[in-house]
Amino acid sequence: MDQASILAASRGPDMTGAAASARAIRHACRDGSLAGATSGLAPGFVQGNLAILPSDLAADFLRFCQANPRPCPIIGVSDIGSPKVPVLGEDLDIRTDFPGYRVWRNGELIDETNDVSDYWRDDLVSFVIGCSLSFEEALLQEGIPLRHVERGIRVPMFRTNVSCTPAGPFEGPLVVSMRPLKAAHAIRAIQITSRFPAVHGAPVHIGDPALIGIRDVSRPDYGDPVEVLADEIPVFWACGVTPQSIIANVKPPFAITHAPGCMLVTDRRNTEFAVI
Amino acid sequence: MDQASILAASRGPDMTGAAASARAIRHACRDGSLAGATSGLAPGFVQGNLAILPSDLAADFLRFCQANPRPCPIIGVSDIGSPKVPVLGEDLDIRTDFPGYRVWRNGELIDETNDVSDYWRDDLVSFVIGCSLSFEEALLQEGIPLRHVERGIRVPMFRTNVSCTPAGPFEGPLVVSMRPLKAAHAIRAIQITSRFPAVHGAPVHIGDPALIGIRDVSRPDYGDPVEVLADEIPVFWACGVTPQSIIANVKPPFAITHAPGCMLVTDRRNTEFAVI
Repeated sequence: MDQASILAASRGPDMTGAAASARAIRHACRDGSLAGATSGLAPGFVQGNLAILPSDLAADFLRFCQANPRPCPIIGVSDIGSPKVPVLGEDLDIRTDFPGYRVWRNGELIDETNDVSDYWRDDLVSFVIGCSLSFEEALLQEGIPLRHVERGIRVPMFRTNVSCTPAGPFEGPLVVSMRPLKAAHAIRAIQITSRFPAVHGAPVHIGDPALIGIRDVSRPDYGDPVEVLADEIPVFWACGVTPQSIIANVKPPFAITHAPGCMLVTDRRNTEFAVI
Repeated sequence: MDQASILAASRGPDMTGAAASARAIRHACRDGSLAGATSGLAPGFVQGNLAILPSDLAADFLRFCQANPRPCPIIGVSDIGSPKVPVLGEDLDIRTDFPGYRVWRNGELIDETNDVSDYWRDDLVSFVIGCSLSFEEALLQEGIPLRHVERGIRVPMFRTNVSCTPAGPFEGPLVVSMRPLKAAHAIRAIQITSRFPAVHGAPVHIGDPALIGIRDVSRPDYGDPVEVLADEIPVFWACGVTPQSIIANVKPPFAITHAPGCMLVTDRRNTEFAVI
């Protein structure tokens, strides 16, 4: 299945085939025919970020995520050594079903690949973490415009001066994403994203960027710059880049993450994660 | 029953006697022993604003409130000519159970009194409108500080350049109340007040006051000035002063409203009005 037909299948309005299209995307990753970003694929289905760690660090990382649910909302954890996370897809194979991975040794990037089977070890634990694509879909469906989506660029992300709650060796600053919104849209966006705690939930900050240690909101630490207009308020959500940034600080002997923009497409619907 | 003992009874933690204390407050208004502001009385119980109009204007006013639920959330309406609103209290008498009333003729204040029985007519319709005291209680219970409450002054209120949806002769600007909050408290306050649409609900604006036509946020049109500190964001809620302000514009031949701060204490609990 080539990438064009996957895109066509996954973007179609046919909900009967929707779960099948999520699976088809994973299989296309697996056979190497899909290697790009997953944004916009399989609309309605949850996409996940990835952190894979050796089991001797996994318990601390799990505690870290539990203590910092806004930036690190876990939606699936594997058994030790298992590449399966059945809650996100029966057939799912964590080693092959992302379009891209980054492999790290002692905090240094040693490989970018679309298949980590050769790196697999029986002590690895996989964490799949909720992602803002889910709540962005909910915002767009309510008619709230998102400038980075309109412009086809990445959301701007910033390291803040807000410390995450530490757990074992895992500590460091909260990373946030920023979306400029008109006040009425910001209020509505707070309501909407509050329903989705499993995908970062409500914003962590609104208004003055300096109050969370952001000196220049036009110069993001990650992603692309997005202008804040005079009648807009910057709205900041906890960002899934946080755990990757924390892992980079900790420099574990071994780790695997997804490549930027290359998420896991799961069989779970975004709407399943709404608390009400 | 004197005012001191009413205050003592109504502020007590004894929930068994709570509904009784709401009724006691109404009866103290009725017999003239309570004539002051109701803020802080019968905590946990809904207080209501009042608008009484002749029946030939009542249908338009009801349409106006229906079209503008944020500033005009109706929690009770009487039958034509009836002084009863049983849904808010079986024994309630709308003519006597407020501590203070204002009587208007052609838009001019003709009397301030604590009993409007002498003005009663068989064509009058009474509207009881939800009030921000209910959501303020919810905010305070979650530990969100409100400066005007801490200082024991009235909340600052502003006429905006936002027009209400007109109905018949009723038209005019939205009036808002302003509470300065730190960003995290503002986000939480949006979540909390969203649960209470019957008492103004979520804010209508956050941030730059000029965007809704407020030139100087330190000079309110009603109530008392409250400072906005550098690390705070002004949060604006639709205000129950709106319908009074609209009625003043319309200058109906006859109208009765409550006196500022002198609300009706009802038998309904604030928590009953939470939608979830």
